[in-house]
Amino acid sequence: MKIGIIGSGMVGRAFALRLAELGHSVVVGTRDVFSTLSRTEPDSKGIPAWQFWAKEYPEVSLVTFSEAARFADVVINATEGAVSLLALNEAGDENLTGKIILDLALPLSYAPGRPPRLMFANDDSLGEQIQCAFPAAQVVKTLNTMSHNVMLNPSILPGSHNAFLSGESDEAKETIVGLLTQFGWPADNIVDLGGIETSRATEMYATLLFQIAKVRGNYDFNIAVVMK
Amino acid sequence: MKIGIIGSGMVGRAFALRLAELGHSVVVGTRDVFSTLSRTEPDSKGIPAWQFWAKEYPEVSLVTFSEAARFADVVINATEGAVSLLALNEAGDENLTGKIILDLALPLSYAPGRPPRLMFANDDSLGEQIQCAFPAAQVVKTLNTMSHNVMLNPSILPGSHNAFLSGESDEAKETIVGLLTQFGWPADNIVDLGGIETSRATEMYATLLFQIAKVRGNYDFNIAVVMK
Repeated sequence: MKIGIIGSGMVGRAFALRLAELGHSVVVGTRDVFSTLSRTEPDSKGIPAWQFWAKEYPEVSLVTFSEAARFADVVINATEGAVSLLALNEAGDENLTGKIILDLALPLSYAPGRPPRLMFANDDSLGEQIQCAFPAAQVVKTLNTMSHNVMLNPSILPGSHNAFLSGESDEAKETIVGLLTQFGWPADNIVDLGGIETSRATEMYATLLFQIAKVRGNYDFNIAVVMK
Repeated sequence: MKIGIIGSGMVGRAFALRLAELGHSVVVGTRDVFSTLSRTEPDSKGIPAWQFWAKEYPEVSLVTFSEAARFADVVINATEGAVSLLALNEAGDENLTGKIILDLALPLSYAPGRPPRLMFANDDSLGEQIQCAFPAAQVVKTLNTMSHNVMLNPSILPGSHNAFLSGESDEAKETIVGLLTQFGWPADNIVDLGGIETSRATEMYATLLFQIAKVRGNYDFNIAVVMK
């Protein structure tokens, strides 16, 4: 499958490698290719500059947001939620038409010494905002309830645990379930919550995710729905 | 332990029975004892009138909110979240001073054909509002991430699953963990998230709880934190 990743940070890179490893054609999009390639210092989160990372992974090419979207059948939004709409706008409505947008992002604001906080919740979600901004694309919100290590390799955790799906298009959700099973997600562990409005539920869960991570001191966990 | 339950609905009654069964002294508080005792019709949720229910359980006595709070060492808020502050105000600040308030409630609004929705979230929580309104009480928010059947009998679900704790007083949380272990919660499955502000996390999770319940068609489930 042709996959364009919007965002060249830690999550975008991890997705690029895993998808390339699975045999997909992957490009990573960034706002300004020249500026990303010129950087030598780690970013504010300590992620090494692209050029050093890319030396080890020459199979992943860096393009603009709009080139990544134009190339792709499935566009993965791996930007920070606070800038996702800006990045997708740069990708261009015309390049997103008819495409599936797999949205991983959480709309977070950060303050020192505190867990991240949602910028909005309860009566809105980033999943809905993206679907609303790009009505000719099919947005599927999923995997946003865990760290990217778990997203891409669910079997690092023991036993059964769950991912959730929200989106308006059953066909698009089916395609994404196909990708997730390639990552190692048993189809039975993917809970389809319904339309894109149900993104509110998984985005709001993030507040509990961050509190659990704070108590545990890491993100190597996920939730399982335990039933009778 | 002397336990006063604020709220004579389904949840209050279920707690009363379970706590009485465990040997605690329990009273159930209602806004207007005479009116609750006079009712003959089921309530809007189909819960039978108190008088019919109470015939089978004469060990549980019905008192006013303020009598229930005055009697108790631990006050359980089993009212609907939308009216919890009103009910606790009627219970009276003077009767809640020095008491533990175990807060189970979710601040929900209802609309036909849709899952319940939080009245507020993200920058506020009912747990915090109650602690703020009754600074001389110790509020512990817990069990609000599951149905009352699971709260009171966690072993109806297989294997390990979790409850969360939020509150300012470690001593009060210890008392509540003691109660929860009597219900069947292994202490290791109770995750202390920190201060009362972390109620936001568990209250916001409710949106996902309702979506999962909608997909599954029942509330016979809970979440487990699955770790490496």
